[in-house]
Amino acid sequence: MKLDKKLKICIVGLGLMGGSYAQALSDEGYEVGAVAKRQETIDFALEKGWIKSGVTEVTAEYLKDFDIVVFALYPHIFTQWIEKYQQCLRDGAVITDVTGVKGCIVYKIQEMLRPGVEFIAAHPMAGREKSGIEYATKEIFRQANYIVTPTEKNTQAAIEICRALGETLGFKTVTQLTPEEHDEMIGFLSQLTHCIAVSLMTCRDTDGFEKYTGDSFRDLTRIANINDVMWSELFLLNKKELLRQMELFEDAFGKLRKAIEDENTDEMRSLMKMSTEHRKRFDKEGK
Amino acid sequence: MKLDKKLKICIVGLGLMGGSYAQALSDEGYEVGAVAKRQETIDFALEKGWIKSGVTEVTAEYLKDFDIVVFALYPHIFTQWIEKYQQCLRDGAVITDVTGVKGCIVYKIQEMLRPGVEFIAAHPMAGREKSGIEYATKEIFRQANYIVTPTEKNTQAAIEICRALGETLGFKTVTQLTPEEHDEMIGFLSQLTHCIAVSLMTCRDTDGFEKYTGDSFRDLTRIANINDVMWSELFLLNKKELLRQMELFEDAFGKLRKAIEDENTDEMRSLMKMSTEHRKRFDKEGK
Repeated sequence: MKLDKKLKICIVGLGLMGGSYAQALSDEGYEVGAVAKRQETIDFALEKGWIKSGVTEVTAEYLKDFDIVVFALYPHIFTQWIEKYQQCLRDGAVITDVTGVKGCIVYKIQEMLRPGVEFIAAHPMAGREKSGIEYATKEIFRQANYIVTPTEKNTQAAIEICRALGETLGFKTVTQLTPEEHDEMIGFLSQLTHCIAVSLMTCRDTDGFEKYTGDSFRDLTRIANINDVMWSELFLLNKKELLRQMELFEDAFGKLRKAIEDENTDEMRSLMKMSTEHRKRFDKEGK
Repeated sequence: MKLDKKLKICIVGLGLMGGSYAQALSDEGYEVGAVAKRQETIDFALEKGWIKSGVTEVTAEYLKDFDIVVFALYPHIFTQWIEKYQQCLRDGAVITDVTGVKGCIVYKIQEMLRPGVEFIAAHPMAGREKSGIEYATKEIFRQANYIVTPTEKNTQAAIEICRALGETLGFKTVTQLTPEEHDEMIGFLSQLTHCIAVSLMTCRDTDGFEKYTGDSFRDLTRIANINDVMWSELFLLNKKELLRQMELFEDAFGKLRKAIEDENTDEMRSLMKMSTEHRKRFDKEGK
C-alpha cells in the first residue's frame, strides 16, 4: 500500500487537530470520513466540505471503507477506543495518531492491536492556544514539524505512508525519531517550557505590572494560556522524562541564583555567554 | 523650566539607547549634542544628522550650553562620571538617565550631586538584542513604556520635563513609579525572565533538537541571547529584589514538579487554570 488518492482516510476525533487534518486532506483531493462525538461537529465539517461523510457511532459497517484511520483523540481515549472498537477496523488498515507523547502509548497500542492492522505513530508538532473544530485550519501545519516514531514492529511500507501523509498535510519538515528520543525532545522543548510558563504565571500576583510588560514577557508567557485537561494528561504520560528535564533546569537556575547571591560576576557572565552561544543554534531560520 | 525646543539636550553615551534618543530628539527639532568615547561614534551620529555637535572629552566649555543632559551609560560608569565631571554641568541643568535599575542608583546620584543640578531618573523600557549606535533607531520606543521614578528630592518641574521627554521620544506610554516599585516590577517582568531564559539555554546540551523547535521555544528563549556585561551588572544592582522574585518562581516551579511527581492531576489542573487566568491580564492589547 502506498499513499495515493484512491485511499480513503477516516479521522477519529474532530477537534482542532482532527479538523485541520480533514481540511488539509480533503483539499488535497482525498475522500475523508470522520467519527466525532457530536453531530454538530460532523455537520460543521460537512458544511465546510472537509469530510464527505461522518458518524457519531463507531460501526464496522462505516469503518470498513477506510484504508487509513487517524486518531486525533486525547491519549487515554485513544487507548479506550482501540480496546473497544478495533474489531471494526478493516483488515490491512494502517492507523496513525497525533499524540504528543510516544513511549507510553506506541508500544501499548501495538501490543493491543490484532494482527492485520498496523499502528504507525506520528506527532504533528502544530497547534494553537484554542481547541475545537471551529479553530481548525490547515495553516497550522505550514511552519511546523511532523515526526514519525516507528518501532521495530513497523513495516517500511507503513512508515512510508505515514511520512507521505505528513508531506500531504503540508508540514514544513517530516522527520523520524525513536519514541524515546521523541519523548526526551518533547520533554525539553515543549513540556518543560510549559511548566516554566505556568510557574512564572502562578508564582505571584501580578500587581498591575501588566501595563509595563514588554514583548519578551508576553512571548515567554503566551503558552501559560494552557489547556489544563490535555496538558496534565500529557505531563503524566511523559512523567519520567519531564521530571528529568525539570531537574536539569532547576540545577541550572540554582547555579545562576548562587552566582547572583555570591556576586560572582565571572560565573554569571560565563553562563550568559554559554546561553547566547546555545541560543544561536536556534536562530538558523532568521527568527 | 519647561521642555521646549529652545532647550539644548546633550546625550552622554551614544550606544543603542543614546543613539536612539539622539535620533528621536533631533527629528523632533531639538538641538542635540553628545559625549562619546570614540570619534567614529560621533562621526556616525553627525553624518546621520542625529546630533549637531559631539566631543570625546568632557569639558565645562562644551557642557555649559546644555539645559538637559541624558546619561545613557552602564550604571557604574554613570556614577563614576558624576563623581568626576559634575562640576562641568551648568547651573540649573536637569539630568536624567536610562538605567534599568533604580533604587541603587537614584538616591546615590542625588546624594552626590551638587546643589543647582537636579537628577530625575527614568527607565525607557525599550531595547534590542543588539548593542551599539549602528543598531540605534527611534522605532524601538514606539510600542514601549517610559517610566519616571522620582524621589522626594525632585521638583515638580523636573518631573514634568522628564515626562515630556518620554512623550517627545515617542513612547507609547509614560508612567510613574517609586524606585522601589520599579525595581520589584523589573525584577519580576524582566530580570527573572532573563534568568529563566539563560537557565533554559544552559541546562543541557541541545542535542540537535533545534530542528524540532516550534515558535514557543524560540519565543521563550529569544532573550537568552544576552549582553553579559550589562545584565550581570544590572542583576547585582537589583540583587535583593531579583533574588526574591527568583525564590517565588522556584517555589511555584517546585509546587508544579511535586504535583507531577505525585500524579496529582487536580493540583496540576488548578495551577494551569490559575496560569491561564493570570495570563489573560497580559492579553489586553490583543497580543
